[in-house]
Amino acid sequence: MAKEVSTTKELPVILITNDDGITAPGIRNLVEAVKDLGKIIVVAPDKPQSGMGHAITIGQPLRLHQVTTFEGIEAWQCSGTPVDCVKLAVDKILHRKPDLCLSGINHGANHSINVIYSGTMSAAVEAAIESIPSIGFSLMDYSIEADFSAARKYVRIIVENMLKSELDKHTVLNVNFPALPEELINGIKICRQAYAKYEEDFIERNDPNNKKYYWLTGKFLNMDEGKDTDVWALENGFVSIVPVQFDLTNYTLKTQLENSWKNL
Amino acid sequence: MAKEVSTTKELPVILITNDDGITAPGIRNLVEAVKDLGKIIVVAPDKPQSGMGHAITIGQPLRLHQVTTFEGIEAWQCSGTPVDCVKLAVDKILHRKPDLCLSGINHGANHSINVIYSGTMSAAVEAAIESIPSIGFSLMDYSIEADFSAARKYVRIIVENMLKSELDKHTVLNVNFPALPEELINGIKICRQAYAKYEEDFIERNDPNNKKYYWLTGKFLNMDEGKDTDVWALENGFVSIVPVQFDLTNYTLKTQLENSWKNL
Repeated sequence: MAKEVSTTKELPVILITNDDGITAPGIRNLVEAVKDLGKIIVVAPDKPQSGMGHAITIGQPLRLHQVTTFEGIEAWQCSGTPVDCVKLAVDKILHRKPDLCLSGINHGANHSINVIYSGTMSAAVEAAIESIPSIGFSLMDYSIEADFSAARKYVRIIVENMLKSELDKHTVLNVNFPALPEELINGIKICRQAYAKYEEDFIERNDPNNKKYYWLTGKFLNMDEGKDTDVWALENGFVSIVPVQFDLTNYTLKTQLENSWKNL
Repeated sequence: MAKEVSTTKELPVILITNDDGITAPGIRNLVEAVKDLGKIIVVAPDKPQSGMGHAITIGQPLRLHQVTTFEGIEAWQCSGTPVDCVKLAVDKILHRKPDLCLSGINHGANHSINVIYSGTMSAAVEAAIESIPSIGFSLMDYSIEADFSAARKYVRIIVENMLKSELDKHTVLNVNFPALPEELINGIKICRQAYAKYEEDFIERNDPNNKKYYWLTGKFLNMDEGKDTDVWALENGFVSIVPVQFDLTNYTLKTQLENSWKNL
């Protein structure tokens, strides 16, 4: 009897989202990579939502439409942010928590400080807040024609491992792939988030009415020379995995302030 | 001579922003509370930007207009998010890093998990990423007519203390005020971020064409019984201060994965 129970065990429910929008090649590659590992449901933005961070839609309503983008897979596009997609999926589509949430594969890196700006990673973090283990995937190639073949192989290894690991339900992994063919990838490295930032350089232009407007541009600056960081791993041909948390308390500073500000 | 240098010491430059928009009473109260403590520059959104998290504006340009909202104080309104405001202020208005960034006073609490959704706190975090020490302030009262008088007193105490403390340039403090008159506030408490979440409950409606749309609503659930949390402090009449960090690495899980996933 035990054997029968085991063979009829329900497949895990896997929610898939992204921030590049439901038509991006990255999410199609993610679906293809894992579609036999569980019951897949896609709920993703109906347009690009890069750089949306952990934004949620408060001041306006959201739309949700079922689409046939992925053959044989239930899929919905949502007018909101990646975080809205996770919230709507749980409350209005699945009516339960999925067993795993996957986000991506993002077109472009989300290593180091990008984790904070990234809609891809914020969707994964939102899932983990809601007790759904999650993984965000990003490839260091912005191109619409990026080659996802090596990424797909590693997505599968990591998802299979995640499904069989008994990790905390608040687990979030930030996975980045170097833009390299499979034979040049040196393996997987567990890392910490590199300290990096953007040096802003807004481009100033004049509109036809001679009024100024600004485009955000910036130069990425890695300030961190550690060999245990995601930036180092990617520069050295590894797939980087950074475990992420949503308790933002700076405990070191907390102790310092408890001592130095105690007479406030 | 030393004395002369000391008396002509330049006032600190204090950048002030928020997420409720430049016309909100909260930012006016913040400006009033600290205007004699430094050279104040206000750069804030031209409309409400609550719940924008760490969103930045990538796909469209930004507008910036000088306004006369605060008598005798240089102020600009920006069409972007709170994080955009900080970036534009540094690059295009100040042409230097301010000595301190203050964000708020938010109409509504930003304790516990709200730190992640909050535009107020994301502006403060952005400043700290850029090596500008910062403080986000929030009052537990959503009302446009909220009473900021007790909050103003504590803003001043905290900002004066921050200016004289030699804290790390990446310091971010998340300060929340209970909605209480001054005489009922029990003091200031340094806290950790409570583990809490929202239980979503989207309201479903039909538009005039009989197509569904959804409004995000949710119930706040505090899952954390610790007496060292911001939620506990606020419920017990204290002003809460949580030191915040932007290194999201989960170091405990990192060690765990380095051991258990080493053959990946």
